[in-house]
Amino acid sequence: MLDTSWLLLNGTILFEIIGTLAFALSGLIEAARKKLDLVGMAMVSGLAAFGGGTLRDILLDRRPFFWVENEIWVWILILICIGALLFMRAQHLEPTARAMQWPDAIGLGAFTAGGTQLALNAGVPAIIAVIMGVLTAIFGGVLRDVVVNEIPKAFSDHIPYSVIAFTGGWVVVGLNFLGAEAFVAVAVAAVFTIVLRVLALLLGWRLPTWRV
Amino acid sequence: MLDTSWLLLNGTILFEIIGTLAFALSGLIEAARKKLDLVGMAMVSGLAAFGGGTLRDILLDRRPFFWVENEIWVWILILICIGALLFMRAQHLEPTARAMQWPDAIGLGAFTAGGTQLALNAGVPAIIAVIMGVLTAIFGGVLRDVVVNEIPKAFSDHIPYSVIAFTGGWVVVGLNFLGAEAFVAVAVAAVFTIVLRVLALLLGWRLPTWRV
Amino acid sequence: MLDTSWLLLNGTILFEIIGTLAFALSGLIEAARKKLDLVGMAMVSGLAAFGGGTLRDILLDRRPFFWVENEIWVWILILICIGALLFMRAQHLEPTARAMQWPDAIGLGAFTAGGTQLALNAGVPAIIAVIMGVLTAIFGGVLRDVVVNEIPKAFSDHIPYSVIAFTGGWVVVGLNFLGAEAFVAVAVAAVFTIVLRVLALLLGWRLPTWRV
Repeated sequence: MLDTSWLLLNGTILFEIIGTLAFALSGLIEAARKKLDLVGMAMVSGLAAFGGGTLRDILLDRRPFFWVENEIWVWILILICIGALLFMRAQHLEPTARAMQWPDAIGLGAFTAGGTQLALNAGVPAIIAVIMGVLTAIFGGVLRDVVVNEIPKAFSDHIPYSVIAFTGGWVVVGLNFLGAEAFVAVAVAAVFTIVLRVLALLLGWRLPTWRV
Repeated sequence: MLDTSWLLLNGTILFEIIGTLAFALSGLIEAARKKLDLVGMAMVSGLAAFGGGTLRDILLDRRPFFWVENEIWVWILILICIGALLFMRAQHLEPTARAMQWPDAIGLGAFTAGGTQLALNAGVPAIIAVIMGVLTAIFGGVLRDVVVNEIPKAFSDHIPYSVIAFTGGWVVVGLNFLGAEAFVAVAVAAVFTIVLRVLALLLGWRLPTWRV
Repeated sequence: MLDTSWLLLNGTILFEIIGTLAFALSGLIEAARKKLDLVGMAMVSGLAAFGGGTLRDILLDRRPFFWVENEIWVWILILICIGALLFMRAQHLEPTARAMQWPDAIGLGAFTAGGTQLALNAGVPAIIAVIMGVLTAIFGGVLRDVVVNEIPKAFSDHIPYSVIAFTGGWVVVGLNFLGAEAFVAVAVAAVFTIVLRVLALLLGWRLPTWRV
């Protein structure tokens, strides 16, 4: 039998890193569209990147926080923001609203799967673990949208978002129930969630609302 | 002498349940007015229902959270949202801004009284217990309003709201000081707060502001 | 050698008090401009005054909170709000957007320096301590702006704000590294930060943004 603790540890850290970078990028694009200054960019990127994981850690009472323990990520975030600012000014790029959707989809998958697995490891019931995964995945984006004064896209864009995260969380739970390795469960659920979100965006899936 | 621990436990849980359901309903109505999708409805209802209690538990360092310990409430919330969506679409109901006021008043009373009592039990000073009660009662509604991009009604509608919660919190403190059972203190203060809020709404009481 | 524990303790408490009062005043002015009612004023002032320190304490896992331990501050805040309301109505004062900048600058310096020092005392790495100082200084103002439905000034006004806090945090780290007393480090960094912010306001310094 394999020693899976190493895989688990590195597996969830791997997806935390992917999700963090993807959400940082989405925050960067949103900050650029809103013409925020350099510090506003770093703040909005930082909220998008670290907000969901920090909320999850507060709710699960896990300390120290990911970004406190791994200070290198704060430096990376600062460098990315300066680099992006210089690059975009040099290239005269105009970021569009749609450009943000792709890194956002990757972050959604990575954080849903990783967050659900971490909550399961902490011993909470399945539905709570799934909710924690969903919160991890969407809270950063909600903060990102609230601070730039928009109704969070997660609540209002009518293209499935949280409901896809919710589904992806249950994939993690199901694979754990079937005895899969934690790393496998996270990887499969992350890819599943990302593919579902990309399909929803490309095919224009809509959620039921009040009056069609 | 009666064994009051059972009463206290079930008393505060009873009011937590009443407040949670009432605020969930208020979130549902707000989400419907803003034409959010199914997931947005569940999120806004969930923030309204669990937001205040979760903040109180973070501030008092109480773990695990109410909704983590009692996962059944998450399921009930999801079912209520689906049911409400189906019902409102079938009936072509248009929720009004005023419709939200009544469940909101019930939630205000239940959470103020229960939150203040829980904080008193945790041993904090009276004024802090009252503030905790007020925060429990209004924070869910503040989150509900902030995420749909409005100035929270608790801060701006000029009809007494938090000040009524503040008064209700002191009723809990006073009754505890007079030696009342915790359950009695919570029940009396909750009814007192609800009646005061309903009177304020019906009679159009106004708070002092900057220029009359 | 002097006993510095008393100085340290009273030094950081002194700056916590200055920062709290300064931010409470800024919240009061913002609430008055938005024509909030008495309770809205108390809430927005309270969020501005206690928001940053509470977030810092949640992130560092410090309990009990400053305002829970020192209930007198809650009473002072309530009295200040009532006094300000009566005074402004009697004088027919119209608070301006610029009036808020001066107490805000003082709060920025006091909270940046005190927050960074407290985080250093808790043993976190330098960059994290600086981020904690910045969060302490700006989070109250961010809450204040978000609840009255504006994009936080810290993110969008293009006059250096967080970047000045960031600089001031490094002054605390540098002085600690050079072996300065904690009280001296906090005092020097606080004054440095306030002067820098006032200069930025008076001289109209601008941060780089996307298109000049």
